[in-house]
Amino acid sequence: MTESGSRKSPQATSFIHRSVSELAPKVSTLTGWAIGIDLGGNNIRGAWVSPKGQLFDPIRWETKVIEGKEKILSRLVLLYEELIKNPPPGCNPDTDLLGVGFGIPGILHLKKGLVIQSPQFPDWKRFAVYEKLRKKIKHPVYIDNDANLAALGEKVFGVCKPYDHFVYVTLGTGIGGALFLNGDLYHGSMGMAGELGHISVNPEGAPESTGNRGSVEIYAGGSGLQRIIDDLRDQIPEITATNPEELYELYKRGNKFPHWQAVEKVFDDMGNALGIMLANVVNSLDPQAICFSGGLVHMWKAFSRKMIQITMERSFVARHNKLRILSSSLIKNANFIETGTVGAASLVFIETLKKQTAVEITKIKAPSVSAQPNAVAVPLKTASAV
Amino acid sequence: MTESGSRKSPQATSFIHRSVSELAPKVSTLTGWAIGIDLGGNNIRGAWVSPKGQLFDPIRWETKVIEGKEKILSRLVLLYEELIKNPPPGCNPDTDLLGVGFGIPGILHLKKGLVIQSPQFPDWKRFAVYEKLRKKIKHPVYIDNDANLAALGEKVFGVCKPYDHFVYVTLGTGIGGALFLNGDLYHGSMGMAGELGHISVNPEGAPESTGNRGSVEIYAGGSGLQRIIDDLRDQIPEITATNPEELYELYKRGNKFPHWQAVEKVFDDMGNALGIMLANVVNSLDPQAICFSGGLVHMWKAFSRKMIQITMERSFVARHNKLRILSSSLIKNANFIETGTVGAASLVFIETLKKQTAVEITKIKAPSVSAQPNAVAVPLKTASAV
Repeated sequence: MTESGSRKSPQATSFIHRSVSELAPKVSTLTGWAIGIDLGGNNIRGAWVSPKGQLFDPIRWETKVIEGKEKILSRLVLLYEELIKNPPPGCNPDTDLLGVGFGIPGILHLKKGLVIQSPQFPDWKRFAVYEKLRKKIKHPVYIDNDANLAALGEKVFGVCKPYDHFVYVTLGTGIGGALFLNGDLYHGSMGMAGELGHISVNPEGAPESTGNRGSVEIYAGGSGLQRIIDDLRDQIPEITATNPEELYELYKRGNKFPHWQAVEKVFDDMGNALGIMLANVVNSLDPQAICFSGGLVHMWKAFSRKMIQITMERSFVARHNKLRILSSSLIKNANFIETGTVGAASLVFIETLKKQTAVEITKIKAPSVSAQPNAVAVPLKTASAV
Repeated sequence: MTESGSRKSPQATSFIHRSVSELAPKVSTLTGWAIGIDLGGNNIRGAWVSPKGQLFDPIRWETKVIEGKEKILSRLVLLYEELIKNPPPGCNPDTDLLGVGFGIPGILHLKKGLVIQSPQFPDWKRFAVYEKLRKKIKHPVYIDNDANLAALGEKVFGVCKPYDHFVYVTLGTGIGGALFLNGDLYHGSMGMAGELGHISVNPEGAPESTGNRGSVEIYAGGSGLQRIIDDLRDQIPEITATNPEELYELYKRGNKFPHWQAVEKVFDDMGNALGIMLANVVNSLDPQAICFSGGLVHMWKAFSRKMIQITMERSFVARHNKLRILSSSLIKNANFIETGTVGAASLVFIETLKKQTAVEITKIKAPSVSAQPNAVAVPLKTASAV
């Protein structure tokens, strides 16, 4: 035990860094730009982003997963080079680009700069993406998981600015997420924290490939909804929707549509499943806010009422801490560019500020503190890491 | 948004503190002692604790909840005074006592030093316990929630030494817990993080007073088991157990006892419920370890096999990160003194080290960092807060 403990002694690290919560309000004071690049299963998106969160000349290319990891990596570098060729007015890339942030889907080992595995890129197994990018890119390179970076963007530029503790949920084909706790992103021991889609909301449900049963994803993720809609069409042929988007169009028609209640039930079940999941997460983490993002969030009107009702009913922590349940503001503001690009740029800004405010540990001089009677009361430990 | 953000600017705090993970290995190098006092619903326990985790002259008094908060507060102070009168050999309380740590059950507002509410002490509502203790006690005073401090004790002196990310579960009358994430205790926005007993493992279960259904506590906490045992006795009179302890005695008799399978099923159901809860928690938090403590932990042999099986089956994160599921080492080592006393003393040691290694923020000089082509690669963000 002692051996393991001392292996993690402070000497192993050489700097103290400030928390994201402390640095985020300073981002807008930075001069210079960031490039954010977001790698997705279908598209690679990239843009120049200013410290005020403004996008310049966003680019979207196809990912072409089938071509394999080295080709995709080259495409990421090409996109960087393309952006460098077309800087924003008045910006000299040689002096004004603070760095390039990459959002990568999958499980990352940040210390080693590896992608451990990625559901969307089957051949990225222990792939040294950081080192490969760093060798090809002339500017400082930063990487993190795409959901983590979207959460970071929401903290720096979006609706989560006021919060030191929030849970970020991505509602897409699957359900993912990120945790922002004690003023920083929380990655977990293996970079897998925030796998919220695999939380069971029906423990007696049918077994899944992961070994779990009744995961929330089955009831509220895009692929799960697709299966539910296919079944519903078999039962009620008048419900012609072939995907969640089309079902939402039927929902918006309201009671005018004769089978509206069956449509509403799909979204109520979705909200119910999300509510059970949120109650469990909130009882564990006592966050100030939950923020939703992803491709299904624009259906907010259809599923959120039930979701909020069930969360509040089931979680005394949510009632006690007056939990805020929000939808992403970046999605609304950033148009076709996803939250990922802004998030990846946020990482550049935060890491730049971290370097600027880092303190070398060797510089710390311990003030002599000895036990004394009638010692002045010391400040209490605060809930957020200082 | 900007307003809210800037309200939390770094100027508001004046020191940077090291994380518990960084300081814990240094505790044994401290000279001086701590007093740890643990307030429980039945007993107040207190002791001198050395920086090596040795207890000296532990005291246990009845709490007498019925006498109300002011009397209980006076009793806490009296216990401190009693301990001061009988210091360990060679210890001068005036110079060698680093501080007094108090473990308090309930929801605490640490910044304000309040007990917001406590299930065991109905009259402790927004009770300024820190200020009241500080006025009566000549040494530095520190407080935190009892489960948090037990987790801290396990990090500093026990089986959780090697971990920067772990979940601590207390199996008692109810089920509580604490989260140790990114090298520090995580309290949540209102000090309610770790309310694991209220995680639903059967969302269609009977409604509870909290509004939730099928909370894990009902199947695996002491009060829940009591109800299950009462029902079982009605069905099978040969099962004469009147409480969980007695049921465990029957369990230990094995197949020799004719109704052993019915007894085993109670513990299997307990393990199953705990396994579903753990799978959900692990999928959210990706911790390195789970550590169990509390009055029911000595029944480990009866419930842990099923619990571990279900956790591993249901959580791909647990399989991937090779989750360790442990029982508290402090319980075994600290005899009748509960983990709480050692935990409360751990807070004193850690806070003393925090003061000794704190850095004033005004002393930080920002090195000039500007964007440069061919900049040397910067260290990657690490998963644990530096």
